[in-house]
Amino acid sequence: MQVLTGVSQRDSGGAPLGLADIQAARARIRPFVHRTPVLQSRTLDALASAELFFKCEHLQRIGAFKARGAHNAVFSLNDAEAARGVTTHSSGNHAAALSLAARNRGISAHVVMPSNATAPKIATVKRLGAQIVFCSPGNDARERSCREVISRTGAIYIPSYDDDRVIAGQATAAAELCEQVADLDAIITPVGGGGLLSGSALYVKQAHPKVQVFAAEPEGADDASRSYRSGVLQKQLAPNTIADGLLTSLSERTFAIIKAHVDDIAVVSESDIIEAMRLVWTILKQAIEPSAAVALAAVLRGRLPTAGKRVGIILSGGNVDLEKLPW
Amino acid sequence: MQVLTGVSQRDSGGAPLGLADIQAARARIRPFVHRTPVLQSRTLDALASAELFFKCEHLQRIGAFKARGAHNAVFSLNDAEAARGVTTHSSGNHAAALSLAARNRGISAHVVMPSNATAPKIATVKRLGAQIVFCSPGNDARERSCREVISRTGAIYIPSYDDDRVIAGQATAAAELCEQVADLDAIITPVGGGGLLSGSALYVKQAHPKVQVFAAEPEGADDASRSYRSGVLQKQLAPNTIADGLLTSLSERTFAIIKAHVDDIAVVSESDIIEAMRLVWTILKQAIEPSAAVALAAVLRGRLPTAGKRVGIILSGGNVDLEKLPW
Repeated sequence: MQVLTGVSQRDSGGAPLGLADIQAARARIRPFVHRTPVLQSRTLDALASAELFFKCEHLQRIGAFKARGAHNAVFSLNDAEAARGVTTHSSGNHAAALSLAARNRGISAHVVMPSNATAPKIATVKRLGAQIVFCSPGNDARERSCREVISRTGAIYIPSYDDDRVIAGQATAAAELCEQVADLDAIITPVGGGGLLSGSALYVKQAHPKVQVFAAEPEGADDASRSYRSGVLQKQLAPNTIADGLLTSLSERTFAIIKAHVDDIAVVSESDIIEAMRLVWTILKQAIEPSAAVALAAVLRGRLPTAGKRVGIILSGGNVDLEKLPW
Repeated sequence: MQVLTGVSQRDSGGAPLGLADIQAARARIRPFVHRTPVLQSRTLDALASAELFFKCEHLQRIGAFKARGAHNAVFSLNDAEAARGVTTHSSGNHAAALSLAARNRGISAHVVMPSNATAPKIATVKRLGAQIVFCSPGNDARERSCREVISRTGAIYIPSYDDDRVIAGQATAAAELCEQVADLDAIITPVGGGGLLSGSALYVKQAHPKVQVFAAEPEGADDASRSYRSGVLQKQLAPNTIADGLLTSLSERTFAIIKAHVDDIAVVSESDIIEAMRLVWTILKQAIEPSAAVALAAVLRGRLPTAGKRVGIILSGGNVDLEKLPW
């Protein structure tokens, strides 16, 4: 998405996001997002040999934490910017999140979706009142369509993760979790593009520096782990995982934060993800999407130093096709 | 189960259960059961043209409200009775609930299960430390096996619903809901044997007499509706429904309470149940069992006078076989 940077993307001019930005995001989005609950299970604690606190972002508006970042970005626009409308390209939760945020601000949203997006995802974006622009599958076509929308409408581009406003919004989930559960030893998030992880790390390491921040990702989309270990940003060329929210690669922006502040990134197999997802469905009775199960999978496989600890796990989303469950 | 009445069943000697009994049950079971959360969804409210409050008993211990009644019954026993252990016949949630309650009291539980009970249900009861006695399928064989257990071990029989202690325990879910949500206009529960419904009605009509109490049940197990409308207890001879928690018929005890205190009982089709279940999974992101979906199904089909009202719906359980989902 770097090609779009010059058009409309906003960053903080080099100053790292601080707690004040995250607190401002919390105040800004409060009328529009849920303070999601935290669930626990003795059975899962016993399986994990740890005390687990599940932050239920699958119960967030549009069923994913992405509602936080999208609302913070949209409500950060000044009136003149907002009047131009917003646009993004996404086939996933960010598309719905931006559509909702635009509706809540009373502005137009143009969402570029690949022509092979699933019917439920298209229906959700339509229901939320966004204009859909279909394009060929593939990142090049998506970016080209997005640029066409921008030049035609003047809409402001809101990336799904490579944006300080979005990252500050995603950080509010970890901030809430730290309020809801005292004395956490660690927080674990899934990592795809790194918006949730980098936001969580920025918040935790400034507000609760003794709390560790971990991430987990699928073997079939392990660019974050490879980047973290090598110290050099690695792109994911052909991601292949059931965790369809984690297909994207880190950006320079999210990688810089992750390199500086994250304590470790674990990798899990597809079968580990499916097993963890099944446990959350059967024991927590929560319908989460595969991407939301990778953090628990890493704990259950002993890939992170969580034994005996109080561990917050962000269940990132719950938008799953009930016709295509992996069991 | 009437044949077992003389052996061990307890009733209140003719005095109807009062609020004091239900408050005593709350105090008795408090250390062992969850105060389950209440969820709302704007999307479901819009579909229902009502304000819906979902009481999440699928998040209760053992994944069903049955934990309440079983704990109240087991912790109502005096020490001499408790030392004899407890028994029941059940292939469902009551089996797990009684096993957990017995474990929490530190006494033995003997659970009669039909030989065709599913592997997950058998595994749950075993995990909770109960002794399993297998019998042939069918109510006669189950009752015979239960009598054999009683004569062999002296165990106290704890029915799944035809028992005042159990009913008082189940009533605590509605009591909590009325505390959690002010000014409800109505509460709806599913009805099988009638323990949850009769307990809810007893509580609500004594504590909040202006609140209406409704029930819903499947067309394929509509004995409660037929009994309610005819005024004469009707048995369900060949129940046939996906809602496997609602196969049982009312007893004289539960029917008397329901006849006196329940405002209406709606009947819904199998496809209505499946559609409501799917909506709860996709919108509330809650993995509920089919039995827990009948109340919402009745609302969505307009079978109860809920339009514009504040309506509490008890999501009764979440123990569902992920391999055998109805879609």
